[in-house]
Amino acid sequence: MVASKSWLEIPADSHFSIANIPFGIISTEGQEQKRSAVAIGDYALDLQCFAKNGGFSGLPSIQDKLSVFGEPTLNSFAALGRPVHKQVREYLQDVFSEGSASSKVLKDNEELKKEALVPRSKAKLHLPMQIGDYTDFFAGINHAFNVGTMFRGPANALQKNYTHLPVGYHGRASSVVVSGTPIRRPNGQVILDPSKPDEPTYTACKRLDIELELAAFVCTPNKQGEPIPVGTAEDNLFGLVLMNDWSARDIQTWEYVPLGPFNAKNFGTSISPWVVLMDALEPFRTKALENSTELTAYLKDPQANRAYDIKLEVDLTTSDGTNTTISKTTAANLLWSFPQMLAHHTVGGCPMNTGDLLGSGTISGTERDTLGSLLEINRAGKEEVKLSNGEVRKFLVDGDTVTIRGACGVENGQLVGFGECVGTILPAPPLQQ
Amino acid sequence: MVASKSWLEIPADSHFSIANIPFGIISTEGQEQKRSAVAIGDYALDLQCFAKNGGFSGLPSIQDKLSVFGEPTLNSFAALGRPVHKQVREYLQDVFSEGSASSKVLKDNEELKKEALVPRSKAKLHLPMQIGDYTDFFAGINHAFNVGTMFRGPANALQKNYTHLPVGYHGRASSVVVSGTPIRRPNGQVILDPSKPDEPTYTACKRLDIELELAAFVCTPNKQGEPIPVGTAEDNLFGLVLMNDWSARDIQTWEYVPLGPFNAKNFGTSISPWVVLMDALEPFRTKALENSTELTAYLKDPQANRAYDIKLEVDLTTSDGTNTTISKTTAANLLWSFPQMLAHHTVGGCPMNTGDLLGSGTISGTERDTLGSLLEINRAGKEEVKLSNGEVRKFLVDGDTVTIRGACGVENGQLVGFGECVGTILPAPPLQQ
Repeated sequence: MVASKSWLEIPADSHFSIANIPFGIISTEGQEQKRSAVAIGDYALDLQCFAKNGGFSGLPSIQDKLSVFGEPTLNSFAALGRPVHKQVREYLQDVFSEGSASSKVLKDNEELKKEALVPRSKAKLHLPMQIGDYTDFFAGINHAFNVGTMFRGPANALQKNYTHLPVGYHGRASSVVVSGTPIRRPNGQVILDPSKPDEPTYTACKRLDIELELAAFVCTPNKQGEPIPVGTAEDNLFGLVLMNDWSARDIQTWEYVPLGPFNAKNFGTSISPWVVLMDALEPFRTKALENSTELTAYLKDPQANRAYDIKLEVDLTTSDGTNTTISKTTAANLLWSFPQMLAHHTVGGCPMNTGDLLGSGTISGTERDTLGSLLEINRAGKEEVKLSNGEVRKFLVDGDTVTIRGACGVENGQLVGFGECVGTILPAPPLQQ
Repeated sequence: MVASKSWLEIPADSHFSIANIPFGIISTEGQEQKRSAVAIGDYALDLQCFAKNGGFSGLPSIQDKLSVFGEPTLNSFAALGRPVHKQVREYLQDVFSEGSASSKVLKDNEELKKEALVPRSKAKLHLPMQIGDYTDFFAGINHAFNVGTMFRGPANALQKNYTHLPVGYHGRASSVVVSGTPIRRPNGQVILDPSKPDEPTYTACKRLDIELELAAFVCTPNKQGEPIPVGTAEDNLFGLVLMNDWSARDIQTWEYVPLGPFNAKNFGTSISPWVVLMDALEPFRTKALENSTELTAYLKDPQANRAYDIKLEVDLTTSDGTNTTISKTTAANLLWSFPQMLAHHTVGGCPMNTGDLLGSGTISGTERDTLGSLLEINRAGKEEVKLSNGEVRKFLVDGDTVTIRGACGVENGQLVGFGECVGTILPAPPLQQ
């Protein structure tokens, strides 16, 4: 479905076409209070202001719920459920459509346009949701295979359970930050001398890495003890964001046996600020990677095509401003879909809350220029990434900036994109004496 | 230090002596709104009511903060910091002391006594804190050794990192429930036939276990990127509760490689409702177990004696009401202290928030009647626990109730106890088709 043309000038390569309408939380100079907005072209439409000035007059069903747009997170809006998200998104598409009846509320109201249409360059973006719990899965099978090969060889690269269930672990919700927040290099215990594998050193991380991921926000909760069926699980999801799950590989190697990653991951995880709704992604659904394992009942999805053909890329920018694209891949490189992750997460009765975040795991293709982590690109530290300015990298150095971008569709003014997920590495704090 | 005698009749074996004054959240019939209380003898003092009626008139420093006691969690009170907790606790001890000046505000006010002193049997107890993130450590070295021995033999029972850092993993905050909440047996994937280790079956858990733990609530946050030094970390803690980290051993065995426990743990974790403040536990500090490993700087605590001699016991009650005490141990059986756990958790910059929960890991002694999990008591399913009514158990059956109790001191009307942490097993929901 091609969305209508907008009366608002939207650049053809904008991630925020009228086909998108992603939701986020903004504040502005002079109005520091956080509130909801949607991104459209080079603007953010301030939904609190829009609602207060009759912008939603054409959508009677939402009238008693407009206060949600004045809240500092999207949780209350998300909790209204997918049918409401769909109505609001479609209404806003109509508001921005050339010649539509609803367009009058904004297009013909110069004062409201001035007040509610904030240039995005002037909007400060915040975490879109209050995240109760954050879970990170491992659904990128190429990544799991590549990393498993490094440790156990290709024959034993994937653990026995890998194709039977979406492996995941509980992450640290408090460390999730919005794109643009600097990331401080962590200190921790690492093995510096492989010949002394029992003698850790307390030092700044020397193998600081990225993980290119997608992540889904939960909108509709389930009660403790009541699993979410895979067939309807998509309706429990609000939308997707890009994620960079920064990883301290050397800390991870020493700490992760037997209970999994901990300080290697909990110093920071960045997400993009605009939540792209499930309905906006609908036209870009595609098959996930083939799983030849016969799945057990609770993971058998009656619908195929639950992956998304989101084109992803990762840029590394050095402190001198030199930019190098180090990876280009697609989000279709996942073995498990978000509905399957949610069905598995709740099969034992785990309660999900509005605002919970589910990461996909690192998304890698099979070729060297399609990998989602430096660990894979540099083959466990054996090779180097050549940057445009002649420098090389195995892992990140202080001052490096990593930018993830992702979008669906082609550049005809109909892109459904995520914008960027950006973070710059700050030096580690002094070691404690 | 022996606390004063109270004018209120407090049974000599009460966990809630005047030496304790633990904080919790109650509601009552006719006043469903959640609010703060302290436990004292057979009563809960409703702090909202007490504050509204001038109960805190003798504590001028708290006058502008009294609204915290009307909130539905203790988070705002906890966030005021340890010096305030200490003042309030000492003031309330004074209020309940025979012959003290402050005792008049309650003792001589029949109307307020009637309104604010709620018989505990009539108070409904709720989760004391809103838990942002929950982390579970593995600091019970006897448990780690016992379980490690089952899988790798005694020579390799402990992983290389075990004595160098407090191993832990991120748990699931949304699944933490207050004592008394029934626990539904989880469904999941398990290997039923050990000769077919690649063929999981979707079934109700058959090896449902307990884990006897202590847990600490965080009061004072740190900023992302700013570690908490071990020497002052105790002041970042609000208090302790008992915890039962219910565990599905068969689900765990299949799922936990390589990222750690997930659905084996996230169906439910029970905590006791009354938070015993760090200051109340001060007289019961003792040395943790000896660690012969030379610790790195950030884990070297200038103070010894950070463990607590809390006497713990676990009862298993069958659905016919027969009670069997299956374990008696002490919380001193930990290798790592809560300040060390907090220092390690934040060494890489992980931000802690008020209300975050840190579990100790399973607390076991070395003898068979001092173990903190059925897995250890039954030696990985090889032996049985004999119950008082002639039944036997390897793992829990539906209808079983597990009660954890813990207290410091001797029974002379000066006990500092936690009350109980109770949960009853409900049958698993039907399998999905």
